[in-house]
Amino acid sequence: MNKKKYAIGIDFGTLSGRTVLVDVDTGNEVATIVKEFTHGVMDEYLPDGKTKLDPDWALQYPEDYLEIYKETIPAVLKEADVEPEQVIGVGIDFTACTMLPVDQKGEPLCFQERFKSNPHAYVKLWKHHAAQDEANKLNEIAGERGEKFLQRYGGKISSEWLIPKIWQILDETPEIYEEADRFMEAADWVVMQLTGSEKRNSCTAGYKAIWHKKEGYPSADFFKSLDPRMENLVEDKLSNDIYPIGDKAGEITEKSARLTGLKKGTAVAIANVDAHVSVPAAGITEPGKMLMIMGTSICHMILGSEEKICPGMCGVVEDGIIPAFMGYEAGQSCVGDHFEWFVNNCLPQNYENEAKEKGIGVHDLLTEKAGQLKVGESGLIALDWWNGNRSVLVDVDLTGMLLGATLLTKPEEIYRTLIEATAFGTRMIVETFRENGVPVNELFAAGGIAEKNKFMMQIYSDVTNMEIRISASGQAPALGSAMFGSVAAGKAAGGYDNIVEAAKKMAKVKEEYYKPIPENVKIYDQLYAEYKRLHDYFGRGENDVMKKLKEIKKITVR
Amino acid sequence: MNKKKYAIGIDFGTLSGRTVLVDVDTGNEVATIVKEFTHGVMDEYLPDGKTKLDPDWALQYPEDYLEIYKETIPAVLKEADVEPEQVIGVGIDFTACTMLPVDQKGEPLCFQERFKSNPHAYVKLWKHHAAQDEANKLNEIAGERGEKFLQRYGGKISSEWLIPKIWQILDETPEIYEEADRFMEAADWVVMQLTGSEKRNSCTAGYKAIWHKKEGYPSADFFKSLDPRMENLVEDKLSNDIYPIGDKAGEITEKSARLTGLKKGTAVAIANVDAHVSVPAAGITEPGKMLMIMGTSICHMILGSEEKICPGMCGVVEDGIIPAFMGYEAGQSCVGDHFEWFVNNCLPQNYENEAKEKGIGVHDLLTEKAGQLKVGESGLIALDWWNGNRSVLVDVDLTGMLLGATLLTKPEEIYRTLIEATAFGTRMIVETFRENGVPVNELFAAGGIAEKNKFMMQIYSDVTNMEIRISASGQAPALGSAMFGSVAAGKAAGGYDNIVEAAKKMAKVKEEYYKPIPENVKIYDQLYAEYKRLHDYFGRGENDVMKKLKEIKKITVR
Repeated sequence: MNKKKYAIGIDFGTLSGRTVLVDVDTGNEVATIVKEFTHGVMDEYLPDGKTKLDPDWALQYPEDYLEIYKETIPAVLKEADVEPEQVIGVGIDFTACTMLPVDQKGEPLCFQERFKSNPHAYVKLWKHHAAQDEANKLNEIAGERGEKFLQRYGGKISSEWLIPKIWQILDETPEIYEEADRFMEAADWVVMQLTGSEKRNSCTAGYKAIWHKKEGYPSADFFKSLDPRMENLVEDKLSNDIYPIGDKAGEITEKSARLTGLKKGTAVAIANVDAHVSVPAAGITEPGKMLMIMGTSICHMILGSEEKICPGMCGVVEDGIIPAFMGYEAGQSCVGDHFEWFVNNCLPQNYENEAKEKGIGVHDLLTEKAGQLKVGESGLIALDWWNGNRSVLVDVDLTGMLLGATLLTKPEEIYRTLIEATAFGTRMIVETFRENGVPVNELFAAGGIAEKNKFMMQIYSDVTNMEIRISASGQAPALGSAMFGSVAAGKAAGGYDNIVEAAKKMAKVKEEYYKPIPENVKIYDQLYAEYKRLHDYFGRGENDVMKKLKEIKKITVR
Repeated sequence: MNKKKYAIGIDFGTLSGRTVLVDVDTGNEVATIVKEFTHGVMDEYLPDGKTKLDPDWALQYPEDYLEIYKETIPAVLKEADVEPEQVIGVGIDFTACTMLPVDQKGEPLCFQERFKSNPHAYVKLWKHHAAQDEANKLNEIAGERGEKFLQRYGGKISSEWLIPKIWQILDETPEIYEEADRFMEAADWVVMQLTGSEKRNSCTAGYKAIWHKKEGYPSADFFKSLDPRMENLVEDKLSNDIYPIGDKAGEITEKSARLTGLKKGTAVAIANVDAHVSVPAAGITEPGKMLMIMGTSICHMILGSEEKICPGMCGVVEDGIIPAFMGYEAGQSCVGDHFEWFVNNCLPQNYENEAKEKGIGVHDLLTEKAGQLKVGESGLIALDWWNGNRSVLVDVDLTGMLLGATLLTKPEEIYRTLIEATAFGTRMIVETFRENGVPVNELFAAGGIAEKNKFMMQIYSDVTNMEIRISASGQAPALGSAMFGSVAAGKAAGGYDNIVEAAKKMAKVKEEYYKPIPENVKIYDQLYAEYKRLHDYFGRGENDVMKKLKEIKKITVR
């Protein structure tokens, strides 16, 4: 009989939960079950079907998370024919900041009949963007007060993060703010459903709630300056007890054992975030190795030994990715989105027809044609700011630019130029980290683009002049969570003492990797020099034409 | 019986000749006949069907021009039921520089059996671009020698002009150069076919052959520095006898009377160029009024009282447009071509489909959509250099730029931005003339875009903050030529003493005109300030990225 040890990783995404059963010794994924959230993303109506939501809202229903536990955990065990006793630990990761107000018992306020029609009682998903006014005010006040925490976040707190979301509740429905015993990250809430006790994780606290291991949260005086009613927000509605990634959160309770079919007493890890938990899943547990999660946007994560302030990083958090290290995060807000825009707005009919005739997608056709071009052949260069610049300039008002067009310029040349521009953006992030004392020696990549787009990955390798290794797991976040589950269980139970040990056995990268091609590197160095000059000219205030055009646009459409 | 007086204008274009019979008293066009050239533009084979031409070649066959006379002149008379006695004068205009080698009798060398298979014996059309090497060498040598004539041509002699074309003949087929008794503009050659004597016109001599009314041609020493065999080019193969526009070239001979059906002794005007002859056709006979011929490119022409050196003008020629005035020419090399590029390379399938469903052209659809946008609404700006910059920077190595793109940018926004960029380019030319002492007080327009594209013309009016009047004749060049024909006839014969008098009666502009819309002007002023800053930044050497990209491209594709 199979007496191997397993860990379970559960990745709570935007539309579904994904549970993976992983062999603790090898990291092999032996069973995977995905279940969509029953209520999905609520951006038009509440579950009552009549309470309408404003634009920019995005809510979830916490009952959906419990359904993930109830259905997918027994299902993976059954599929792999594994006994509950064989599962030594559970880890979860979640989107963030995805947050909810709960009562004293930890029950979501939206479970109470009296709040069923109150949107602010529900879970605010990471992409709930209706707290922009609060974020703007927060940044303004923090700037005026010279709050040093801003530096750790590239000078700006996002409307997606915890404090603006809480403030929006207070602004619009003070009774929910009052009624809430506390506000929790959904990540911590789902862990609490397994363990019966609240243990907040250092990753979301650090990256999303302005918490710092040594300095804690912003001061009561700062919160008071936002709104006097928020003066004691931390003490009253949050918690100063923050637990580092890699700790054990607790064990499966009798209640959660009934829900999940797992054995009471099974170890549960401190909660984590989808992007961050992918880092050890790719085998990264030490400084110098940057992981890029590449999809519609790119999230760049790297560990450091010391806390440095790097222009434009999205955050630096101690224990934020791997315990005992500084976890740095940066990002490009528009990568895959760029190419989608191009295909939807700029692709001529004959290209569509050609793709159809060949029976391939338009991206494949463009990639095929763009791949036949030599580096520098198009004579084009672009600034990849179609959706602003998240790093290193942190300026949403910057816009895209294409330069070098002639009457002979072809669609595939523009397509390739947009890809190259995003690669230059990544190089700019890498160099900025290096210049500010955070070494970047190796590149790793995960996500849809990393797995599928060889053409683009080669360009990234050539532009950065670095080898790029690709995460071998199609479920990197769930694998990473399972790794943390096995660490929560500990060596004695058949798991590992720490994430470094777990990564040695369980992490996965593909054997093939991308190597820079010297002749391409040489030309890209020249092109990057031009990119950098344009980047600084338009991005650092010498010529603010992009902002002026946005101002003119605002006046015009008013 | 109809005893009105008429003049005939003949416009020799690129693909056809267009003969118009015009009422001398009113300027009304009473009959028009168009005939295509039998041999069209020869850019692949000679008429023998076996001698292959290199790329960039473009030839014509002079017999085709005689066919225009033979067929279209009798045809207009017949169509309008007009007697030859009623025709008091003939004027012609031609493309330029369109040139040919002739023998001592003025016969084209290509008419001789022994040269039938020699491409250099034929007419080189204006768009014959195979003399680029010679033009480059000429500009280099002239620059080194500090030849002052360069200033009059914006610093550069085009490969389309006379001297490079002659030099190419010498370089590649010295026996043709030797055999040629002289080289003539086709404009002057076709006039000579009517009058029996050679009288070269000041327009092509000035704009295309580096001739100056006071200084004459470049020195023999200069020509010798190009090639010792060319030292005496002017004396041996050209002529110092140049006649101003508006003079009488001669009269219909017995021979040409037989060819054309016109009466022997009918006055014939000195030859002219299609664009330049459109100026009086729009009623312009004095300084301050700029005519724009708007099509695939724009040619800007304006008269001045004094000779000024304006950066980037294509030429300034005394008597070049209207006798006794300085004729200034400037141009934008890429206007209609711009929009064609966009439609061929950037238009999505759903736009094509929508146009098809509505039963309109894609340009009409884009214009409809772009017309719904307010000024400044797109947030975009462009530099209109897809085909380099002819004026005021005179730099073919500049390339196009689009700035301000976001994920919401739509095709019609880019389309409108390209139109606006060409209008900013025209404003730049207008302002440069003004700054250099050539007043521009009124705008006139002719050509396909001026006649058809109200949307674009309104943008030009708003951007320049000037009213724009539109030439009312669909055959402006032929009308202008007929006007010069009536001047050649003179007042005693029922014509006019000079072109000013002729224009008062015969010129045509439409009653409606474009008026700037104040609120648009205000915003375009702001956008133009941004355009100008980018224009100077990328165009005047501060950031030579466009050239660097072209250099990289050259190295890459080598």
